[in-house]
Amino acid sequence: MTEFELIKRYFSRPAPSALIGNGDDCAVVAPRAGHAFAITTDTLIEGRHFLPTLDPYTLGRRAVAVNLSDLAAMGAEPRFATLSLALPDIDESWLNQFSLGLWSALDEHGVELIGGNTTRAALSVSLTALGDVPVVNGQAQTLLRSGAQAGDELWVSGPMGEAGWALYCLLNDPRAGEGASATARQIACYEAPQARVTLGLALRGVATSCIDVSDGLLSEATHIANASDVNIAIEFAAIPHGLSHWLESSAHATFAKHCILTTGDAYELLFTAKPSDHAWVAQTLRRLGLSGAQIGLVGPRQAKKTKSDHDSVTVLGAKSEAMDIAVFGSAGWDHFGGASV
Amino acid sequence: MTEFELIKRYFSRPAPSALIGNGDDCAVVAPRAGHAFAITTDTLIEGRHFLPTLDPYTLGRRAVAVNLSDLAAMGAEPRFATLSLALPDIDESWLNQFSLGLWSALDEHGVELIGGNTTRAALSVSLTALGDVPVVNGQAQTLLRSGAQAGDELWVSGPMGEAGWALYCLLNDPRAGEGASATARQIACYEAPQARVTLGLALRGVATSCIDVSDGLLSEATHIANASDVNIAIEFAAIPHGLSHWLESSAHATFAKHCILTTGDAYELLFTAKPSDHAWVAQTLRRLGLSGAQIGLVGPRQAKKTKSDHDSVTVLGAKSEAMDIAVFGSAGWDHFGGASV
Repeated sequence: MTEFELIKRYFSRPAPSALIGNGDDCAVVAPRAGHAFAITTDTLIEGRHFLPTLDPYTLGRRAVAVNLSDLAAMGAEPRFATLSLALPDIDESWLNQFSLGLWSALDEHGVELIGGNTTRAALSVSLTALGDVPVVNGQAQTLLRSGAQAGDELWVSGPMGEAGWALYCLLNDPRAGEGASATARQIACYEAPQARVTLGLALRGVATSCIDVSDGLLSEATHIANASDVNIAIEFAAIPHGLSHWLESSAHATFAKHCILTTGDAYELLFTAKPSDHAWVAQTLRRLGLSGAQIGLVGPRQAKKTKSDHDSVTVLGAKSEAMDIAVFGSAGWDHFGGASV
Repeated sequence: MTEFELIKRYFSRPAPSALIGNGDDCAVVAPRAGHAFAITTDTLIEGRHFLPTLDPYTLGRRAVAVNLSDLAAMGAEPRFATLSLALPDIDESWLNQFSLGLWSALDEHGVELIGGNTTRAALSVSLTALGDVPVVNGQAQTLLRSGAQAGDELWVSGPMGEAGWALYCLLNDPRAGEGASATARQIACYEAPQARVTLGLALRGVATSCIDVSDGLLSEATHIANASDVNIAIEFAAIPHGLSHWLESSAHATFAKHCILTTGDAYELLFTAKPSDHAWVAQTLRRLGLSGAQIGLVGPRQAKKTKSDHDSVTVLGAKSEAMDIAVFGSAGWDHFGGASV
């Protein structure tokens, strides 16, 4: 099978919203009237962003989810995507399952695939996604990291730490404890995240700042704090998670906190909103079936006190004391324990 | 250096034309009023799309050129790009040179880099490029593969075969002949192609079809013929190239013809235009300093006669006889002799 045949067989469907769809040197697309495109690119590399054991159907869904999660964090409405796929060989059964997963996730969000390329190399999946955002008086009406203000509440849209916990269990990491195993739900959290697209759209005009939790709660909260020039205080007990059993085990309490505060792959939205919108946000989360919660408060920017990566973020323990968060690891999720590039 | 620091140091510059530039979950961009975006993604993988010996500055330029070449083939005006970069390790000298090459090529065409990601893996460079195309009455005014009509002339914007020849020489392929070596100009043709952006823009409204020659002349001519439902006759002697010395060597004549007709990486434009525009096209090529030429004619679609991949394309020899083109290799450029994916 040539590259042309492969693309035609697995990755070509009509793109009725495109001015020009697949099959020429470029596709041609336009945002809806009064809108601009939010654009994001994410790459998944085997052994770094997913385990070699991940089934191809779920990989296809995952590639879409991690890209649409970035659109969700901007409050953008997903519309188009392009795919760059590197494959070590042509395995039609694999391609069939991968493409079914990819299409199922694209179809759920009404996204049209408008181009791509394939090549023979180590397995990697790179997607570029485009979504509409309204433009008013030349200003894009998006959710940014930079709009949080002192007095705002900090929210997260779903559980933290379970995806990271599942990954450690799948890797049989000794820090998770002898015989630790993740539940099917936790594994699904890790392997098949759901992009919070509907929530992102609902938060337009309400959230004062927003980011998706791809790299870990502390890291993302720090991005908001630094971009908004504020401090953030998180109440540890308020963070939704499903790791209570491990938190209560004295042998693994630190590790469980590490999972909740610093592991990535959750793809929930972390956002700030005015206290006056508290009831509306809580109701919206419930209506969407999300187990999110208010987890903290935004305060005025204060001078740096420590050399931690998270100077602008404080985590409060059971007695409202500032926890020593340095022990939970540094900024950002370090995929598979390799040094970040 | 973390991924954030790396991107900030080497790949972040202001993007004044973007509504929102680097640094949030997505960039936000819009085509100019009355325009839509042409979008294309291309990936360069070490050992498949470029030699491991290629210097990083030239690699940066090459990554831009191969993407902008697709925009040129649509008659689009390049505006924005995103970058996905996989690196085996952090080599600051390499990154510095690579980014300088990338920026130099982006700056030449006024393209703003609006996002990207980096990861640790085998070296690969994936760019997504966006360019403006006018929209009139809901129709994108682009150059397509599908508009060639019987009676049109076929043109190519520059020499064929030299990039392919240079690659065979760099690989010391025995088919190039004992001691064969490529000239510096031929090596530059291969390593550092120029996207024909200005020509693509000039051809708006003149070219009836257009494609860029990334995969080889016969393959691209076949794409135009099949998309336009026509036949194409190419006069071999009219094809510009710099391989005369090897064509005249009886030992290597077949190999030289193979290079001219089927090797890729030329990144010239192959296009059709009306005979009434002949003088204008010839003058435009001269004005742009391009050694292009009319190389054939478009004829009505005829029934398939052979089982060749190139049924719809005929190459005429010195006595106007149809050359047996099957001996020159199959459709498309097969990077580094591996099977196409």
